[in-house]
Amino acid sequence: MIQVAVCGPRDASEAERAQAREVGRLLAGRGAVVVCGGYGGVMEAVAAGASGAGGLVVGVLSLSTREGANPHLTVAIPTGIGEARNAAVVNAGDAVIVVGGSWGTLSELALALRSGKRVVQLGGWRIADAEGAPLDGITRAGSPAEAVAATGLFV
Amino acid sequence: MIQVAVCGPRDASEAERAQAREVGRLLAGRGAVVVCGGYGGVMEAVAAGASGAGGLVVGVLSLSTREGANPHLTVAIPTGIGEARNAAVVNAGDAVIVVGGSWGTLSELALALRSGKRVVQLGGWRIADAEGAPLDGITRAGSPAEAVAATGLFV
Amino acid sequence: MIQVAVCGPRDASEAERAQAREVGRLLAGRGAVVVCGGYGGVMEAVAAGASGAGGLVVGVLSLSTREGANPHLTVAIPTGIGEARNAAVVNAGDAVIVVGGSWGTLSELALALRSGKRVVQLGGWRIADAEGAPLDGITRAGSPAEAVAATGLFV
Amino acid sequence: MIQVAVCGPRDASEAERAQAREVGRLLAGRGAVVVCGGYGGVMEAVAAGASGAGGLVVGVLSLSTREGANPHLTVAIPTGIGEARNAAVVNAGDAVIVVGGSWGTLSELALALRSGKRVVQLGGWRIADAEGAPLDGITRAGSPAEAVAATGLFV
Repeated sequence: MIQVAVCGPRDASEAERAQAREVGRLLAGRGAVVVCGGYGGVMEAVAAGASGAGGLVVGVLSLSTREGANPHLTVAIPTGIGEARNAAVVNAGDAVIVVGGSWGTLSELALALRSGKRVVQLGGWRIADAEGAPLDGITRAGSPAEAVAATGLFV
Repeated sequence: MIQVAVCGPRDASEAERAQAREVGRLLAGRGAVVVCGGYGGVMEAVAAGASGAGGLVVGVLSLSTREGANPHLTVAIPTGIGEARNAAVVNAGDAVIVVGGSWGTLSELALALRSGKRVVQLGGWRIADAEGAPLDGITRAGSPAEAVAATGLFV
Repeated sequence: MIQVAVCGPRDASEAERAQAREVGRLLAGRGAVVVCGGYGGVMEAVAAGASGAGGLVVGVLSLSTREGANPHLTVAIPTGIGEARNAAVVNAGDAVIVVGGSWGTLSELALALRSGKRVVQLGGWRIADAEGAPLDGITRAGSPAEAVAATGLFV
Repeated sequence: MIQVAVCGPRDASEAERAQAREVGRLLAGRGAVVVCGGYGGVMEAVAAGASGAGGLVVGVLSLSTREGANPHLTVAIPTGIGEARNAAVVNAGDAVIVVGGSWGTLSELALALRSGKRVVQLGGWRIADAEGAPLDGITRAGSPAEAVAATGLFV
């Protein structure tokens, strides 16, 4: 079973939510399980997109109960480990797609690259070294379809 | 969606594995998601029982990769947080069924009672206070069917 | 530097708190660092005993802030990982001393035995296998001095 | 007791290690506890600087044992929770000083900003929004002394 982690902010723009929904729909269409943080914004949009297309969605929650989880999760895993759960979200993906930007999202992107995962970014923040040169390792995609293809998991 | 955490040792007797398989089969038959630690022994048996009956099984792994996960999981969540993941397994269950005994299993049983969950024990270890009196809070079941009923989730 | 984890309930009897204070005093007198869960009851008593004797005490907290930490800690580590921090408390000790009983305390005792640590129990709960026979691996001590000696760390 | 988390890569340049040592020395001189990830590079340099100046240093390790910890720690907390421990390092600081850059370091910087901590960056990576504008919230310092002052903790 292919699993893809999709990360993004709770406070997301309508454009970001639309992209996340489409990413979820496409992943479900290819039979992949979507893993996300389980709450609102991008997390809810990707879950809605995937479950609406008949896919399986797992929300790895920071809290120890299902309180606040979005209604589109097939399964909720309330870890109770707070923001440390970001590491688990990332570890659960064969690749990671990032939609939009926030500090929590950036921590997931960074942990994914730390662990050597393929990371595809759709919009969102930019990271550069001390001299301002973009860092290697992140694939930037221009659309949901491009992002899903760029994971390299569906060939 | 009802979720039940099923805990038990990697080194399990054939009798314990048979009980776990039956617990998994019964839970899947009632439409519940099974959450377990994702490795061998009781974890593998409950996963085999549930997936064989068409159910959904999530393995919350201690390692940061899927290495060593049993082949019956629908989804694997490699948390990378080591034995601390026992807390996440327990938090993910609306109730907890314990089959057999080991130190890791006992930690899950204890965390479940710490968090106020309904805990049903099928065989396994016995805990008593300093004077030797059995502690309140654990329901003991004599069979897989009794254990599933004793969760109080299927009425 | 020798580090000893001391575990016990927040709701502790005066006798348990007195034992914990004495354990802390003795450990500090031998130059060991005391690691505990950082809150009240046994955790506070062992911290008071150790810091009163000039020792170093680290509280590994479940919350993400220092809120509720007892005032006798030299350092507080607010992990934010909830009850999963019990694993970290235990991992931080070269040996583990358990004073009194609770479900949280039992999870720490179990995790310590799971990881092969020397565990010394002063009072507290009793664990037996399915037939009621006491399990191997726990050393029972009759006094704080006996408990500290039984860690085997001070020879 | 004031606690400052100092984050930075294992693979650090000599210039970064020199800065980290000086940050450690200055923090110890002001009576602050240094919390770090406990391994090599910037983590070792800040620990050496602080302990050499008589300060207290806590290493919050990712592994479950003290294996690989640097020799300058006063106390080691082997959490066993892997990269999820980055959240604990950050939570343990009243402010966070970042020296140099790596993906692990970036995850700590991001988690610190996520939790609303004061973050001071000495060199290291640059983060910008989707349009390339630097993000609010990070204070950039030109020297160890400036970094320590910019925490706002020593007035």
